[in-house]
This record gives sequence, C-alpha cells and structure tokens, in this order.
Amino acid sequence: MDQTATRTDKLKVTFKPKDGDRREPAVTRVPAGTTLFHAAAWTGQPIESTCGGRGTCGKCRVKVIEGACPITPADQDHLGEADLAAGWRLSCQAEVRHETVCEIPRLLKTPKTAAFGVGRQVLLDPNVHKVHLRFPEPDLHDQQPDFERLRDILRREGFAMTATLPVLRTLPKALRDAEFDFTAVLCGDALLAIEKGDTTRVCYGAAFDLGTTTIVGTLMDLGTGEPKAVASQLNAQAIHGGDVLSRISHTMGRAQGLGELQQLAATTINQLLEQLAARAGVPLDRIYEITVAGNATMTHLLLGIDPEPISVTPFIPAIGRGVEVRAADIGLAVHPEGRVYLFPSIGAYVGGDIVAGLLATALPRGDALRLFVDVGTNGEIALGSEPRTVATAAPAGPAFEGAEISCGMRATTGAIEGVTITADAVALQTIEDARPVGLCGSGLIDAVAQLYRRGLMDATGRMLGQDDLRDRLPESLLSRVVTVDGVRAFVLATEEETGGRRILFSQKDVRQLQFAKGSIAAGIRILMKVMGVKPEDLREILLAGAFGSYINPASARTIGLVPAVPLDRIRAIGNAAGEGAKIGLLSYREREAAEAMPARVEYIELSGREDFNDIFMDVLGFPPLDSLP
Amino acid sequence: MDQTATRTDKLKVTFKPKDGDRREPAVTRVPAGTTLFHAAAWTGQPIESTCGGRGTCGKCRVKVIEGACPITPADQDHLGEADLAAGWRLSCQAEVRHETVCEIPRLLKTPKTAAFGVGRQVLLDPNVHKVHLRFPEPDLHDQQPDFERLRDILRREGFAMTATLPVLRTLPKALRDAEFDFTAVLCGDALLAIEKGDTTRVCYGAAFDLGTTTIVGTLMDLGTGEPKAVASQLNAQAIHGGDVLSRISHTMGRAQGLGELQQLAATTINQLLEQLAARAGVPLDRIYEITVAGNATMTHLLLGIDPEPISVTPFIPAIGRGVEVRAADIGLAVHPEGRVYLFPSIGAYVGGDIVAGLLATALPRGDALRLFVDVGTNGEIALGSEPRTVATAAPAGPAFEGAEISCGMRATTGAIEGVTITADAVALQTIEDARPVGLCGSGLIDAVAQLYRRGLMDATGRMLGQDDLRDRLPESLLSRVVTVDGVRAFVLATEEETGGRRILFSQKDVRQLQFAKGSIAAGIRILMKVMGVKPEDLREILLAGAFGSYINPASARTIGLVPAVPLDRIRAIGNAAGEGAKIGLLSYREREAAEAMPARVEYIELSGREDFNDIFMDVLGFPPLDSLP
Repeated sequence: MDQTATRTDKLKVTFKPKDGDRREPAVTRVPAGTTLFHAAAWTGQPIESTCGGRGTCGKCRVKVIEGACPITPADQDHLGEADLAAGWRLSCQAEVRHETVCEIPRLLKTPKTAAFGVGRQVLLDPNVHKVHLRFPEPDLHDQQPDFERLRDILRREGFAMTATLPVLRTLPKALRDAEFDFTAVLCGDALLAIEKGDTTRVCYGAAFDLGTTTIVGTLMDLGTGEPKAVASQLNAQAIHGGDVLSRISHTMGRAQGLGELQQLAATTINQLLEQLAARAGVPLDRIYEITVAGNATMTHLLLGIDPEPISVTPFIPAIGRGVEVRAADIGLAVHPEGRVYLFPSIGAYVGGDIVAGLLATALPRGDALRLFVDVGTNGEIALGSEPRTVATAAPAGPAFEGAEISCGMRATTGAIEGVTITADAVALQTIEDARPVGLCGSGLIDAVAQLYRRGLMDATGRMLGQDDLRDRLPESLLSRVVTVDGVRAFVLATEEETGGRRILFSQKDVRQLQFAKGSIAAGIRILMKVMGVKPEDLREILLAGAFGSYINPASARTIGLVPAVPLDRIRAIGNAAGEGAKIGLLSYREREAAEAMPARVEYIELSGREDFNDIFMDVLGFPPLDSLP
Repeated sequence: MDQTATRTDKLKVTFKPKDGDRREPAVTRVPAGTTLFHAAAWTGQPIESTCGGRGTCGKCRVKVIEGACPITPADQDHLGEADLAAGWRLSCQAEVRHETVCEIPRLLKTPKTAAFGVGRQVLLDPNVHKVHLRFPEPDLHDQQPDFERLRDILRREGFAMTATLPVLRTLPKALRDAEFDFTAVLCGDALLAIEKGDTTRVCYGAAFDLGTTTIVGTLMDLGTGEPKAVASQLNAQAIHGGDVLSRISHTMGRAQGLGELQQLAATTINQLLEQLAARAGVPLDRIYEITVAGNATMTHLLLGIDPEPISVTPFIPAIGRGVEVRAADIGLAVHPEGRVYLFPSIGAYVGGDIVAGLLATALPRGDALRLFVDVGTNGEIALGSEPRTVATAAPAGPAFEGAEISCGMRATTGAIEGVTITADAVALQTIEDARPVGLCGSGLIDAVAQLYRRGLMDATGRMLGQDDLRDRLPESLLSRVVTVDGVRAFVLATEEETGGRRILFSQKDVRQLQFAKGSIAAGIRILMKVMGVKPEDLREILLAGAFGSYINPASARTIGLVPAVPLDRIRAIGNAAGEGAKIGLLSYREREAAEAMPARVEYIELSGREDFNDIFMDVLGFPPLDSLP
C-alpha cells in the first residue's frame, strides 16, 4: 500500500540552532513532501510566521545548509538574490525531498506561550487573527473593488484572504459603515467579518472534548491563551444508547436517525457554549472558532455524515483527515461565519480524541518511548516516540463503564471507585462519600487487584472458596466469601454498610473484567511486539481519559491491564483530548502537527491479526505477584 | 498604484513550435508571476492537461529554452532528473519571472474544438469532468477512509479533489449503493457527486448572458461542445426599472429590495433553465455548471451583494474578479451541488458581459488593433490588441433604448428600425413589418444619418426649415419638414402611414441622440488618444450587443458614433457576451484567460479626465460628409 511506503520512507531533518545558541539540534524524520515549516512545528521549533504557512507573509525563512531545496515562486517574491544564493528559503514552501539540515533564526520577540497538556509549552499562534486596518476612502484614481483592495492590504500585512459569498455580501456596507476604520477577522485565510473600529482585544474560541458520554467545553481568550470558563454536560445523544455502536445503529434504517443525533450533539454543544459565554461575559458572536476532539463516530455524527461503515468490517470512516466547516453548517451558534475544526482520525477506532491526546502528550514527537492508554468501551492505545509510533484500538466491551457487571454502575454518586482489602477489613471509597451503591470501573479494577493481592483469587482469575481460605483469613473477611446460586462471590459491602442490599462481586464479574482488560492488554502486547520493545523499555505509561484519572496505577499493573513497570512510570494524565483541543485552538502549528498524525502514526488493525487470539489468551490471567517491579 | 505597475511591467514569453512543426511562434507579454500554462492559454496555444493547472496531472510539461524557471515540488513529483536538467517544467507551476522562450510538445491526440464567438476555435476543455471509476471494496488490509481513497485514486488519474460537507455526507452511501462502480463528477477540483455506474456521456452546462433587459441562456453538451437549446426571456427585475441605476436605487432604503432583485434574476434564470432542459430532454440535475456574463450591477444583484457603491462616485464594486459559488447558494435549480461562475469585471461599468465579449472576440489577445463597442445606456468600449488593451464606459443615457426621444420606443413590434430617405420619399423598415409606431435605437441612428446625408440637417445637428430647403427638396419631402410649437421636426410617418398619429422626429430628439452618441464617441476618442492611434490604424470595429446587430454601420459612421473607417471594417458581432459565456463554459483555459483580463486590460475612468469635456464638445456634431472614406 502506498501509505505504508510513505510512512516508512521518512527523511531526516535536522534543525540547528544559530551560532551562539546553545540549544540542542532538533531532529525529526518526515514523509517526503513535508514542508520544513511543518517539520519544525512537529519538533516544536518555533519559526516566525503570520500567515500560517501560506507563503504570503515571507517571515518563516530558514537557511538550508544540507539538502537541496529548489527556489519557489514565493521565495522569489520575498527573498533577495543574495539570500537565495546563501540557501535561505521560506520554510512553509520548502518541501523535504532529501535529508536536510537547516538553521532557524531566533524569533524576533519572545513569543507568548501557555502551558497545556502533559508539560507542554504551546506557542500562542491561533488560526484566528484580528487585524486592525484604516485606509482612505477609494476615489476616482483608485477604483479597486472592495474585495481586491482588502485582499491586497492584508497581503501586505502578511495575511492571505478569501471570502465566502455570505461575507462578500456584507463587505460594501461593513466597510462604509466603519468609515474604512475596522478590524478584519480572519480564520486561516477565510475572512469572517469586518468589525467597526479596533476590536483586536476581543477574540475568543472554544475547545471541545466531544465524548460519547460527556462533552466538555472550554472558552479560551485567543489573545492571551487563558481559559475563561469550563463547562461539561452529558452528550444528549445518550438517550439513543451509551456507546458508539448503539448510536450508529440508531442511524441505521431510520430516515431521521442521523439528523436526530447530529442535532442532539449540536444542541449539547450549544448549551455549553451559552453557559461558557454567560460565565465569561463574552457575547457568542465573539467566538470565532471551535475545535472539537471526538472519536470518529462522534465526529461523523456531529458533521451529519453516515457513520454506518465504521461499525461493520472493514470499518471504514467517510473521512480521516481533519475537517473545517462553518459552525452554522452544523448548527453551532457562535459568530455566524465562525468555523469549526474537527481533529483527524488515525483509524476508525483511533479517532480525533486520541489524536488530540497525542498532541497534548506530544508522544509521537517525543524522545522517550511512551505508552498511551485510554481505557473505555474501546481501549485506544498508542506506543512510540519521534522515530516511530503505532496505535490501535482494542474492543474492551462495556465492563469498565460498569455494564455487564452484576454490581456495576456508572461513576456517579455512591459508586465505589476505590477498594482496599486490609488484613481484616474492606475499605471502600465512594463517589461523594455516599453510601455504596455499586461498583464503577476504577473500583472494579481495584476490587480484582485487591482480591488477587490478598490471595482471594488465583492468577487464572478463579475465586477461592471459604474452604481454601479458612486458614489464611480472619472471620471478618472470611464471612464475605460466599456462594450464591453455585457461583462464588465476595461481599464488597454488607447490608449494614449499604443500608440496603449487600453488594456482591461475583466470579462472573471477574471474568467480565478479565475479558475487558485482556483485550486492552493484548492490544498493548501486540504494539510492543510490532515495535520490538519490552516493558523495561517504556519510559512512561500515560493513562488518559476521565476514567484513566481514577484508575489506581498499582491496581492496573496488578491485574496486568498495563505492563509491569515501576509505579512511578505510570501516570494518569486526565482529559488529554480536551487539552489537545485547547492546544489546537491556540496554535495553528500544533494543529498542523495533529493533521500530520494520521500519516505519521501507524494504525495496527487487530481484527486482521492471526496472533491476536493467542496473545489474548496469554494475558487473560494476572501476572505473578512477585514479577511486579 | 501597484496595479498599474504590474500592468505595464510585462514580460515577453515566446512559445516555439517543436522542430518540424511549421506554425509561427506565439508571443505574449504577461505580468510577472503568470504561469506558462496561463500565458499559453492566453495566446491560444493548447497544452495537455486534465487537472486544469492544479499541478496534479503532470501532463502540461513544456521545455524552457530561455529564462530560468526554478524546479517546483510538482516538477519533482512528475518529471525525472534528466528531464528537469533538460529544462522541462510543468507549465502550470512555472511562473514567468524573466523573458522566457519555451517549446510546447504537440498534443497527444487531436483535441476536440468548437467554433464560437468571432471566428474562434475553442479547445473543448470544460471545468466539469466526469471520471468513471471502479474499485474493489475496502478490506481489513486497506482501511483508508472513503474521502482519502477517492482523492488518491482521482489524483492518480490526474485530478485534484476537494469536497464540501454536503457532498461528504453523501459519500459513504453513494459509493456503497454503486458497489464502488461509479462516476465521480468534478467541477474544478470540487467533487459534486458520485453517480452510479458510468454516466460520463451525460454531462451538461448552461451559459447565460445576464442582460439588464433580457436574459439569454444556452444549454450545452459539455462532452461534445454542442448547443442543445437556446431560450431567452425578459429579466424579471425590469418591473423595478429599465436600467442599472434604477435597479440599484430599488435596493437603497428598502430592506427587502436587494433580496427581491436577487430572487427575480434567479427566477428568470430558473425559468429559462426549465425551458432549456425540457427542450433538450435533459434532467436539471445533469446540469453541473452555469456560466454567467453580466454587467457588474447584474452580477452583484444575482449574487445578492449590495451594488450601491457602484452607483455613486467613485463607483466601487464589491468584487471585481470572477466568482464561483454553489448554484443553490444563489437559488439556481440545477444539480444540487452545481456551480455558477460569474465573469470578472474590468471596472464598475465594464463588467463581466464585456469581459465575455472580449473573450469571444479575443481582442486583447489578437494581433490586429481592433475597437469593440457595445452601444446601450452605457457604451462599453475596448481598444487594443495583444500588447496593450484599454477599456472604458461612456454614459450614453437612455436615448438608444428609445427613452427621452419624443417618438422613441423599445425595439418591439412596430418600432422603426431602419430609415432610408430617398430622393423623394421616406422608406421605413419596421419590426415584424407592422405599421410604424415609433422609433427604436437603430432607427434613431438611421433617421439622423439620413437627415444629415440628405441635407435636412447641418453638421452641428441643426435641422433646416422649409425656407432653407425649398430649392432642394421635392414637395413629397418638403411637406414632411414641419414646425410644431416653435420646434423643428421631420414627419417620419404620416397619419396615413401609421393609421393613427403621425410620427414626428424633432430637433430635441436630434439633440438627445447627439448627447448619447457624443458620449460614446468621446470615449472612443479618449481611448484612441491614450493608445496614440488614428482611425486608419483600426483594423476592425466590432459592434457588440443585441443592439449592435441592428445598427446600420454606414449610419453609425455617418453620425460619428464610430470612427470613420472603410465600411467593410465595421462589423456587427451579435451577442458577444453570450458567446463568451459559452466559451468560458466549454473551456477552463479560456475562462482563465477571462480571469486574467482585469489585470491585462487597462480601465480608463472618464469621470476623472480633464480632457473629457473638450473632446465631448468636439464630437457632438457630425463629421463632414466628404471626410468619410
């Protein structure tokens, strides 16, 4: 396949600091045809630019020292003969065709940055630009049409400009009402609006983590990079099913199904936008851009694109690359000409949320080998560092969401989220410290890990009976080991403790958990096999997603959900997708790095692999306790 | 002004035929930055291409012999080292920066052409492409998303592809319903539709001359270049005024005025489309593209863009360049994703109709110096040839439309369209040979010319009285010379001849005609002055527009409406705008040539000129009869 060829056929690019600059050279390998500008963005090297790589501003010059870069028309427009001869090129036009070494000049002024994601310093360089302009009224000696006049003036300021018909329609009146003293609002090169006077300081965007269950939005000041408000809400689509497959099946065979789900997602986002705007005191029409990180199904549904082929083999999305649309075209109520950017997907089940997560962690751009795991109905896994990254999705089923577990529940009030079995007692941690009601995902992992650690269960997952345990357990625990309808179970909470029915954790529940974790563990094992790495090679394991934040790393390791690495290498990183969405909103370059991920991260399809079943059987049980570092 | 600089700063490009080809080299001068592909299109040299100059198909190679053209990334993708070293370049990427000489290979097969416009052979190369494709269903080893898969396959066929959200939404189902055996419909690089099976032979477009008074449409088979049906209808906007200024004033101060006029134009076009489709037996949704040649006001109104600034000094359109929009976005009912292309303007009053007319005549690309005149409420004038062309608009007022002439009327049944005054009688030619009712524009010009030729009027336009004429005229004519309320007049038709009231042509009417023709003649005179040419330098005078077809060339010359050239050099070319619209529909290259006209044709604003009044006074009268060649 072509794609594989370009993925493996990478060319080395080295960015050397200027003489006197003591930073280390940055090295990356990029597919042929990548521009030096994007290669630099990928390594995190900042290059001057106002036009975002469109060849208009002429600021992104680099000096090519090794590897020929032909002179492009834009080079000729912006660089003199002497500079061209010395190897200077506009990095946004220079495509990498050979191994290349180049020098990046220092930035003219220290750029604004903001800390986001996993220890990332993000250069503030949003896709939305506000440019305050004032120019004389046209006269008989200068009859250039409005569009061309504005385009030429913006070009001189370093910006490219296009305009859709709705904006063109507003142009003559807006310019004249403002007496030609106005602020042009650009999103990329699209002119969104002409605002009277100088409104450059009023410029907002919103970043969304579009989850199957929950949608989280953050309102950002694009001028300062500061978050102004955060809000979250259940995805209103949930009335049509809890997971992506039930959502997709709602669109099948129902003429209105797709439209309904599209509207429900848009409505939820609009409600969040209203809350955000109200809390921050920002009018909705000063929000010019939205970024959305969602899995492929959520992305398709929000766009109103039929997701059905995602749900059946061979799992084909309609589009993988990032999509930019007018917010109004998908029913989102911000500035009437505002834009929405939806992150690209690496595969049908490694979607924009994971791409955003990888952006937040910079995993595929980092030096150290890291493992990224987002545990949920689907476990999304990525493994790698700058030279190579692979990713996959493992179908874990709904156990981690509390479904198909006899005492399972969602992570709401009263859910047991932590379990500790001491020498003679069971200590439960519940959400909002309420009386225990059931077991949510993190509690489930804890429960199994604790039962295993305390010897109540063997490495195959078989729960032991009172007879096996009588010598080893005090009565306080032994009394919790029961058999109900011939099935072994452990009383997590007694009737006294719950104030109602006791909470039983059964052998069947353990099996459910084993299947769920086995799937993810097998996915991880396969990626490690593909990469040829061992647990001790992993510098870090990143547990992403809301759920990941609650998992006890020790328990995850005990049950073999993640490889056996020292505990301090396992790290919960919270809502990485949401962080990535913010980063993509604040930095056009970072967004370009996200856009490059489908080409740079190899997708490994598990369904097709002959070794999957063997590996899966291998990891169904639990690792020997003495094997944990 | 920048624009002037680029207009005058032109670089010479010579296209040499290959050895053995005996054609003459073609030479043109283009603004720096023009691509060789466009320069060749401008000269009419055909170059292979399927992608229309997007750098995707790799077919448009030329060999650069003189003048450096740097190697572009697209060159590297499509040409080998040896070819690059030998000077081969993709002409669509190679920008002219120096005087350049290059060789164009012969076309691989003889291209289809069609005759249009003024003796033009147009290469059939429409913007709409239908590509029949068949590919295997995706499987687990090839999980590329639909969009990317289709884009890559089309790219291999030489086409670039983008897709809007509405088309993306249809993609998964359309591909699967067709079992991956389908026809991709592209307009430029925009994917319009996926049609089941092979529909490549069913491909239509429509070309419109969007006149202030009349709209004319032609349905074209884009596969063969043949016109399939023609229809015309009054522009329904006419209920809000006959000329552009009254239309514009309808939009001023009325909230709904602009929307009304937009809808009226769209409705008229839709009615024509229905007639065309019915006559040709073509479903509306097989019409994929429409081209529209209209003046700037008509163009703005159809787009729904406020035209007000066009009507007041300094006469600034909202946009000058050509505009491409979705047909649905301006309410035109063809294929739901069909596109509309509206021709660019050279100035506020030298609009897309004139650009299309210049395309049909190839005046700014020709060898011979020609004068183009479109007589109407505004007289649009262009003068030049390949090295330089200038254009202007002269406000003639409504006299040529029959308004403000006592016996004036529109060119409908009973209008006198031709007048001959013989030695002793008046012979009238009327529309549909009906009894005479009044005088339309061509009759007006004839009447004045004949009165002047027969000595009934002097060179200043003063009508002579019976006393002055008694010696020279027979009674049959003398009796027609009358004075009514102290104003001299000539009886064009007696009560007997009309069967009602007599038709009087008065001294006041002569003055109106003089003002109208004086304005146009002054415009012509000024362009000739700017270009430094004399009447004898003019190879041809082209009378364009519906009206131009009816003007008697001898009369036009007699009254000094056009310069005094031998009669065989004056030629009525009919609806040049409509011809240009068809050419732009059938050939993407020709459309690019139209798009280049605003940069290549200099607009001369008459309002700003100090010499206008003198020249105008100079040409108010009639040229000495013995001065006519």
